[in-house]
Formats: sequence, C-alpha cells, structure tokens
Amino acid sequence: MAIQTMNAVVFRGPFNISVERKAKPQIKQQTDAIVRVKSAGICGSELHMYRGHQKTGTGHIMGHEFVGTVEQVGGKVIDFQPGDSVVAIFSPVCMKCWYCVRGLTNRCVEGTAFGTQQLDGGQAEFVRVPFADGTLQRVPPELDDRLLIMMCDIFPTGYYGASRAIEGLCNQLESPLTSKSKLLFDQTIVVLGCGPVGICAIATILSKGVRRIYAVDSVEDRLKEAEQLGATSLKLGQDDIEETIMAVTDGRGADAVVEVVGNQDALRSAFNLLRPCGILSSVGFHQSELPFTGLDCYLKNITVNFGRVPVRTVFNDALECLKQNEAKLKTYVSHELDLKDASEGFAMFAQHKARKVILRV
Amino acid sequence: MAIQTMNAVVFRGPFNISVERKAKPQIKQQTDAIVRVKSAGICGSELHMYRGHQKTGTGHIMGHEFVGTVEQVGGKVIDFQPGDSVVAIFSPVCMKCWYCVRGLTNRCVEGTAFGTQQLDGGQAEFVRVPFADGTLQRVPPELDDRLLIMMCDIFPTGYYGASRAIEGLCNQLESPLTSKSKLLFDQTIVVLGCGPVGICAIATILSKGVRRIYAVDSVEDRLKEAEQLGATSLKLGQDDIEETIMAVTDGRGADAVVEVVGNQDALRSAFNLLRPCGILSSVGFHQSELPFTGLDCYLKNITVNFGRVPVRTVFNDALECLKQNEAKLKTYVSHELDLKDASEGFAMFAQHKARKVILRV
Repeated sequence: MAIQTMNAVVFRGPFNISVERKAKPQIKQQTDAIVRVKSAGICGSELHMYRGHQKTGTGHIMGHEFVGTVEQVGGKVIDFQPGDSVVAIFSPVCMKCWYCVRGLTNRCVEGTAFGTQQLDGGQAEFVRVPFADGTLQRVPPELDDRLLIMMCDIFPTGYYGASRAIEGLCNQLESPLTSKSKLLFDQTIVVLGCGPVGICAIATILSKGVRRIYAVDSVEDRLKEAEQLGATSLKLGQDDIEETIMAVTDGRGADAVVEVVGNQDALRSAFNLLRPCGILSSVGFHQSELPFTGLDCYLKNITVNFGRVPVRTVFNDALECLKQNEAKLKTYVSHELDLKDASEGFAMFAQHKARKVILRV
Repeated sequence: MAIQTMNAVVFRGPFNISVERKAKPQIKQQTDAIVRVKSAGICGSELHMYRGHQKTGTGHIMGHEFVGTVEQVGGKVIDFQPGDSVVAIFSPVCMKCWYCVRGLTNRCVEGTAFGTQQLDGGQAEFVRVPFADGTLQRVPPELDDRLLIMMCDIFPTGYYGASRAIEGLCNQLESPLTSKSKLLFDQTIVVLGCGPVGICAIATILSKGVRRIYAVDSVEDRLKEAEQLGATSLKLGQDDIEETIMAVTDGRGADAVVEVVGNQDALRSAFNLLRPCGILSSVGFHQSELPFTGLDCYLKNITVNFGRVPVRTVFNDALECLKQNEAKLKTYVSHELDLKDASEGFAMFAQHKARKVILRV
C-alpha cells in the first residue's frame, strides 16, 4: 500500500517556513488519536523558534494550536471516537502521573509540546495526538473556531496569569471591616504586554470583577484592543507608566501585575509598579538573572509566581471566561490564511502586521 | 512633681546591654496605653542589633515581646481599660490606614517596631503602646505567659511562613481524582532553620494536617526540639539534605519549603529542594542577591513568598494553633531570668546556650 501523504507546515530554519508533502501520521500507541485538522493557529511562542532565538533542529511540523475532527483512535482511547469535534491543548497530558493526578498538568512527566522536534504539530492536514483522552477536549458547538483556537494555549495562559494574581489578592484581602468582593472591585491590576496572551489576561481580569486595569505595550494596535476590552492603555516610551500607576493608587502602586513579556526590563518594571504585599504573576519566559534582590523582595513583602499554565486543569474555567468575552474577542483573529500561505502568515505575525493568524486547512 | 523612674534594658552598643533607671513612659497620644510589664521575651531578631549587624543608634529600651497589665489609657482607647491583661504585637498598628483596613497590617503606614530608636520597647517595668486598640490583644487567661510571649512575634511569624506554604499548596491541588485533604496529608514540607520561628512553623504545619516534615538546622538542641514536635531532623553539614528529600519524594523534591534563616545559602537550598510547581515561603530577612535566575524560576514553575507577617491579622488563627500545641511547646522557654540579668540573657541566647529567654519584671 502506498504511503498516504498530506500538506504540512515544516520548519526549515530561522525565517524559513515551507509547506511540504509529509507522510500522514499513524497511530503509534493505543492511547493516540489521529485528528483531521480544520484550523490551526500561529502562536507567539513559535516566533522564538522562527526568529532563531530558540535553538532547535529542523524538519518537524509546526503548530500547537489546532481544532478538528477525530479521524481514528487507538484501542485504549475511551472518551473519543471518529467524528468527534475536538480542540487540543498545546502539550499532551497523560493524566496518570504524580503531577497530572494532582492537577499539575503543566508538569506531566510525559509532557512534550506539539510543533517541536519531539512531536509533530497541527499545522497540517492530520496530526497524531498522544494521550488523546487527556490532550483532546470536546468542543462546545456554539463556539467559533477563531475563538476555539485561543483555548489551545493563549487564553488559558492569560487566564492563568490573571487568576494567580487574583487568587493571591483574594488570599490576602482578609478584613473584618469590608467585604472581599468590594475589595476586589477596588483593586488596580497592570498587565505588561498586550499581545494575544495579555489580551486574554485582561479579559479574564475584567470577568473576575476588577475594574481598574492598566494595559502596557508599545504597539498601537494592541493598546487599541486592550482599550476596547475595557482597560486603560499606557504606551511604553511615551507615557510615564510608573508615575501614572502611583498617581491612581495614592502613591502605593498596583495591587498586582501580570507580566507576559518575558524579559528583565518587564520584570523590573513589574516589581517597581507593585505596592507592598503586591502579587507579581509572571507568565513570560525568562532566561536572565532576576532584576531584583532578596532585600527588595523582603522589604516589599511580595509574592511572585512563575511559569507555564496547566492548561488541562484550568481548561473548563478558562472556557467559561472566554464565552463571557465572546462578543469582545470574536474579531480578535485578524488574518485567516490558507495552510499553503503559512510562510506569509509567520512573516506578518513576526512583523506585528497581524494580531492573530489562523491557517485554514 | 518628681519624674517617676523605672528599670529598663537599654541598648548601649553591640554586645552592650545595660539595665538602667529610665523615666516612666507617659501617654503621648489619646490612642496610647501604658502597660505594666509582667514578662518580656528576647527575640532572635534583636540579635541583629546586639551583634552589630544592624546599624542603629543607642539609648533606646529593648524588647518587642511583652505581656502585662494595662496601667493607664488615653481618652480615645475604646477596647481596653486599666487592669486588663494584655499581650502586644511587635509592631503597632493603626487599624485605620489603607493597609490595615485590608488586613495588610504588616504594612501599616504608622508601622514602627518596639525596641528601636523610634519606639522604646517592653523590656522594662512600663511601656507606652501606641494605637492600643490595634496593638494590644486581650489574653486568654488559661494560657501561660511563656506561651503568650510567643504570640508577640515568633509564633505568628512561623505560622505565617507555614500558612503561606500550605495555602499555596491548597490553591494548586485541584484534582477531580482525589480529595484535597488526602493530597495535603501526602505533602512533604521542609523547614529550613529550627530556631524559635522554625519551631513555630513546624507546629503549625503539623496542626494543618501535613505529616512529612523535615527540619533542617546545624544546632543539635534545635533538631531535638523539632523531632519532639514530630518532624524528621536533618543536620546541616552531616546529612545529605538534598539526597534525603529526593529519596523520600521519588526524586521530585519537597512540595513546599519554609525558609526562616535569611541568607543566600538557605534560599538556594530551598530552591534546590523544591519540586516543580513547589512553594517557597521565605520569612527570613534577606539582604543579598537572589540565588536563582529567571530561567530557574520559569522552568520550575515556582511560587515565592517573601517578607514580614501581618501579626494582627493572623493573631487569632495563630493563637488557636498555639493552643493546639500547648502541651508540646510549654517547655520551649529554656531560661527565665530577672529583668536585671538581661545582659546575661542576651549573651547566652546569642551563643545558642538558651533556646528562648524570658525576662521577669
């Protein structure tokens, strides 16, 4: 029997994305499923690889955001069958290891990510999905693909960054003198970075009842989007961010900062903007020294959260939150291209010419 | 009228503590109270000053741990009257500022500490207590002075370090597959530093239902005390701490580490001992660079809490916890001296010859 082939978006090196014929994936483990892809997103985190900042081999299929239909399942897949409409999360989860059982699915011992040397991604006609019962999620039929794509990574990531900040504030706002919801209403939260994840964080914070949100970025279009959601925008290099935040908080600083940028300047800025006992929720990918000392942290009494979202664990709550923001976010995807135009899609996204790109298969 | 005088423990410079006649304090503000001191503790944090590591002027009265009886109150004190048995918290709290109203009493804008250049302390016959309605707490008559003294600072501080760790774990242990209390029962927590605060942290952790507690220190007597409470002791410089913790957690690391030491080595050790997504609750006073990078934190997905306890806010919960541990902790005070022997008390405490010293007035 001849090997079946398919179109797929292949990484050939920095700034070199090509659409090629690749072998159609096969079931390897009894817990695998094969999914026929309908739409696949290009995610900001793929740009690290695209720009050559993240060293990696070549030849793998890109993409960790995809929705589609189950084509085939292995013998041990229980929850899905061919024909089911599904959305995948960016990293397979076994749901059996020490971490998964405790909800720490971001640390699954089997964890790898789609669209890497370890695992071909979803920017293709078909994709093999390991641990299908954990990795795939049934999709609510009423939700548009353009919103669903956000559920693979960016919405849960923004949701997680925002939730950790709000959870931290809720834990600390213990007062016999006034109610917790009143206190939360009065909080001031800054979101540093208004790319897709930042926008999702802003939507979450608003849904949780916080009203004073400041959105910081240098890209005009992103700030407009943040404003439309209900945040007050502050432009890097133009507005005096620290002065503004201090002024609106009577000199205290923000109650929490959600940092989604992933560099030292952003992290230092987050620290400076915080009030004493504030919460710094960082979902940015940091690779440098921390730009604050032990004394800084002690004197400011801060809580700092770092790292990656357990998508599987927060999926349902994040989905509810996304639905609440459906009207505001449904136009968020700015470009829908055919899979064969993936190279153009990566280029325009990397140049900030597209807010969010989806590839139609 | 002649000025009334009293005996008081005065800081005269590093390693120089003298008991002198000082003027009896007077009401200065209508919210003040004057307390006749019955017992005053010597706290580990006073040793920074005693040893000369913390630069300060001289001539002030030492002590931020004291219990006694209200002698006199200002016209605006509502909750207390002469004759009331009281215990003070180490730092006055106004209960009116933005922070106090929200339970963040550790950041009271009026905040200062007893036993400093700003405010004479309680190692004396009498002490002036600012914001008496917030700073003083009514004492349960059944509790021994030796335990009550722990409520001024060390027990709430240990309680806070432990509670933040446990709160963090509770927040993250979201699993549909097993119950939260079962998960908490199974956690492994390491306490780095088993001085008075560490011992209080261990007592709290046990009261919260965690069973696997490892207590790390280099002082034999401290480790014995930790063992008696129910922790497993590990001796610095003798046991291989990291190897032990990894072995008992199947190579994952501890779920949380409570660090009460306050130096870089302890903080780095805390980081190394943590599992991915672990909680690092630091109540140590840190003055150096942080001994881990942004990449370390991101890759380990950790949460780090720093800083000082809001004693007033946690007071009642901590008191309940102390009562639960009354039997185990009632012998914790190793030395009771007369106020006039304060100099000897400081010396033996600084040389680790006393576990906890109380001065009787």
